[in-house]
Amino acid sequence: MTEQSAYGRLETRFARLGALNEAMAVLHWDSSAMMPSGGAEARGEQLAQLSLMAHELLVEPGVADWLSAAETQVDSPDNGLDDWRRANLREMRRAHSHATALPARLVEALRRACHTCEGLWREARPANDYARVKPALQEVLALTREAGQAKAAALGKSLYDALLDQYEPDGNAAAIERLFDELAQDLPNLLGEVLEHQAKQPAAVLPAGPFPVEAQADLARQLMQALGFDFRHGRLDTSAHPFTGGVPEDVRLTTRYDDSDFVSGLMGVVHETGHALYERGLPRAWRRQPVGDARGMSIHESQSLLFEMQACRSRDFVSYLAPLAQSAFAGSGPEWEADNLYRLYTRVQPDFIRVDADEVTYPAHVILRFRLEKALIEERMTLDDLPGAWAEQLEALLGITPPDDRRGCLQDIHWYDGAWGYFPTYTLGAMTAAQLFASACSAHPEIPEQLGRGDFSTLLAWLRRHVHGQGSRFSSEELLVRATGKPLDPKIFEAHLRGRYLADA
Amino acid sequence: MTEQSAYGRLETRFARLGALNEAMAVLHWDSSAMMPSGGAEARGEQLAQLSLMAHELLVEPGVADWLSAAETQVDSPDNGLDDWRRANLREMRRAHSHATALPARLVEALRRACHTCEGLWREARPANDYARVKPALQEVLALTREAGQAKAAALGKSLYDALLDQYEPDGNAAAIERLFDELAQDLPNLLGEVLEHQAKQPAAVLPAGPFPVEAQADLARQLMQALGFDFRHGRLDTSAHPFTGGVPEDVRLTTRYDDSDFVSGLMGVVHETGHALYERGLPRAWRRQPVGDARGMSIHESQSLLFEMQACRSRDFVSYLAPLAQSAFAGSGPEWEADNLYRLYTRVQPDFIRVDADEVTYPAHVILRFRLEKALIEERMTLDDLPGAWAEQLEALLGITPPDDRRGCLQDIHWYDGAWGYFPTYTLGAMTAAQLFASACSAHPEIPEQLGRGDFSTLLAWLRRHVHGQGSRFSSEELLVRATGKPLDPKIFEAHLRGRYLADA
Repeated sequence: MTEQSAYGRLETRFARLGALNEAMAVLHWDSSAMMPSGGAEARGEQLAQLSLMAHELLVEPGVADWLSAAETQVDSPDNGLDDWRRANLREMRRAHSHATALPARLVEALRRACHTCEGLWREARPANDYARVKPALQEVLALTREAGQAKAAALGKSLYDALLDQYEPDGNAAAIERLFDELAQDLPNLLGEVLEHQAKQPAAVLPAGPFPVEAQADLARQLMQALGFDFRHGRLDTSAHPFTGGVPEDVRLTTRYDDSDFVSGLMGVVHETGHALYERGLPRAWRRQPVGDARGMSIHESQSLLFEMQACRSRDFVSYLAPLAQSAFAGSGPEWEADNLYRLYTRVQPDFIRVDADEVTYPAHVILRFRLEKALIEERMTLDDLPGAWAEQLEALLGITPPDDRRGCLQDIHWYDGAWGYFPTYTLGAMTAAQLFASACSAHPEIPEQLGRGDFSTLLAWLRRHVHGQGSRFSSEELLVRATGKPLDPKIFEAHLRGRYLADA
Repeated sequence: MTEQSAYGRLETRFARLGALNEAMAVLHWDSSAMMPSGGAEARGEQLAQLSLMAHELLVEPGVADWLSAAETQVDSPDNGLDDWRRANLREMRRAHSHATALPARLVEALRRACHTCEGLWREARPANDYARVKPALQEVLALTREAGQAKAAALGKSLYDALLDQYEPDGNAAAIERLFDELAQDLPNLLGEVLEHQAKQPAAVLPAGPFPVEAQADLARQLMQALGFDFRHGRLDTSAHPFTGGVPEDVRLTTRYDDSDFVSGLMGVVHETGHALYERGLPRAWRRQPVGDARGMSIHESQSLLFEMQACRSRDFVSYLAPLAQSAFAGSGPEWEADNLYRLYTRVQPDFIRVDADEVTYPAHVILRFRLEKALIEERMTLDDLPGAWAEQLEALLGITPPDDRRGCLQDIHWYDGAWGYFPTYTLGAMTAAQLFASACSAHPEIPEQLGRGDFSTLLAWLRRHVHGQGSRFSSEELLVRATGKPLDPKIFEAHLRGRYLADA
């Protein structure tokens, strides 16, 4: 076996692993969008076996040998690897390190602890009973720390960075801390200015429903097509929790409809469409190879937020949307005018719940969670201190205090389900979206006017070239530098907020 | 490793294989019922990899060792196997023999030949051009014979029986020949009597549409529930070719709707529901083990035909159905009365197309195909002789001659797609259905009257106990003997036809 063939064997192995992951993605989509309740147990067994087989494909001793052999040969003048293959090998090594870092016992213990804790959380949240779930959360946290330590050793990273790496490859907590500290310093003042400015504008009026679900779905499909979604390569269905699944050639979006309010649901579809367009635009030549996958959660979120926040909440796009919405629901009156719809889509209101937060206050929710989870993981804080620390941080960042834990530390599933190190990707995504959109518009100043006609072709082509088509070839930071000329800069995000929220509507 | 642990290892291996097969079943359903066209290529790759992995799980050398070890130990007084485990081991051996009989080269050659031939057939059929597809069909036939010979050697069976075993385990062509010869002798006379009798009855009138698809789907769901289908464990969707897929806890039915005719579509759903109830009733304790699978295609078809032909085309059931249909479509007039609907559902008309045939003429289509495919496989006939032999047999059996090959030997996909040895299971299924239904009604004389009230509980309980819950524990023949007291008897099927088609409606 030559070293080059070691790399070839890795590609074959990862192609199989990729197909297995795709099968699981379709089964996951089906579980949420199609499966009757009685199918859950059998589906669990199917997914457990497939996931075990995927794990085995990675941890087989041969894979470690192939990786070492291929890495030795990377720079060989005879049969070295080109850029894409090097990046692929780097991502193969990352996947292998994550998969082999944890002993089977720990994987199973963590799976069980998360399952138990998530179940308790589903009861504790509506009951506003943090004490009830705290012991289970303590167990999840302890096992997460143990897993993080094992991964830190395998990856040569700090504890928190090792957890972060699962969602944001090569993410760096110290760098995130600097970015978030800067935002945290500027946002309270900005929020004050925005609220003051908003108070002088006319109030936004919510059009009165009901809005039939079929009409909402038709309008959603119309917008998806305008954004560039190709229904020969995907579907839109409904599920309890909207998400984007499936595979690049067949992206499965889901949403949910509220027949008394079409406004937020419609932007939810736009958000998922951003995720879908990213998946669809991944490099075809590298399908089912790690380098062909999406880069990570912050870049993924940047694509959903670029469409939702940057493009589709813009004044230009809302002017295009308003008559379509009015016609879809046969509405009449001033509340259907673009000015009012724009005010609705840019309303700012500090509140307790992250998922309902507007673009200006959202970062505060994320910064708070990042700081708290990092302190918990690094044992600078205990779970007993969590509710108090939560209230204190929210007061400092948004000037409000949660009246109870249900609207405080019980509101999100992430920690209870074992997703530690995930939260920062939301705001990294928002900042990245602002920076990418600014660069796209700078390269193509016609984009805003095109969006006003529902024409996304120039924007999408730019994203295909600079983001989607790059797969996992570069780190998030290098991808951004190549696309925009500089690393992530909070000032660009802040400038976007100032431009949108301090201008007259 | 003790011999008992060899059996245990086999159960573990087949459980994994079962989960993989279930995943493929859901992906197949999705391909037909949900997938946009652009997803086909990726889906093909997913299924190819999963199918290869399933094959590898079976042919790994260790499996042969475990099988031999477990078989040696079957009768051990210390750790021998009970009846279910013995049957499971027998079915494991069968699956292993089929999987290992063919060299990879032949599997691939057959797959390619079938793919090519099926593609040509799709063009040749509408063009009525048998000559165009004949060379490709010759290639499929030659490779099928080669595969059959390899399987015959592995299974210790004759060539045709080895092919039959893929669809009807332990099926025996000589026995089928005797049964079919008996039917072929009696049916022409019976058909004459039926047509004469039918001519004296009032003509059946098709209610005039359109029948909205949503109303058809609602009525179909209502009937499915009456039959015993549990929508917590399954779905009804649409696809170009109706089928039953999914897994026992989550059975996925599909149908198609013709808005100018609800009559045949409705019975199509009933037919698929029969398949679905069988899957749902398979023994829970043996899930993902070969002995827990459906017995074979003739028993499967017996369950669909028991519901479609025996139960739901009965005078009793049609009396229950008529007012439901009338109400579903807001119909009025004598064509909506039970008498007319019953005449529609029992109309007999010799014709050229198998899939449109009624219950009385259907066996002739199958007997013809069985005789011809057996002669072709055994090289007693060539493909050049096929159209002529087809016409001759149809004339002898039904008294009609196909005007062209489109309505002759080009009408069915089976041979062109490599399914040789499949056809007899249709009529074996019809005969088995008659025999099972007669026994159920003899044990529970209240069943017909219950069907008249849409109550299938007694019938379903009998089938659950005697058929569904037995999985693959017995051969088809032993299953039937245990359920009805005797092997397959064509006289029972003929008596059913006489009772239904020679009585006054």
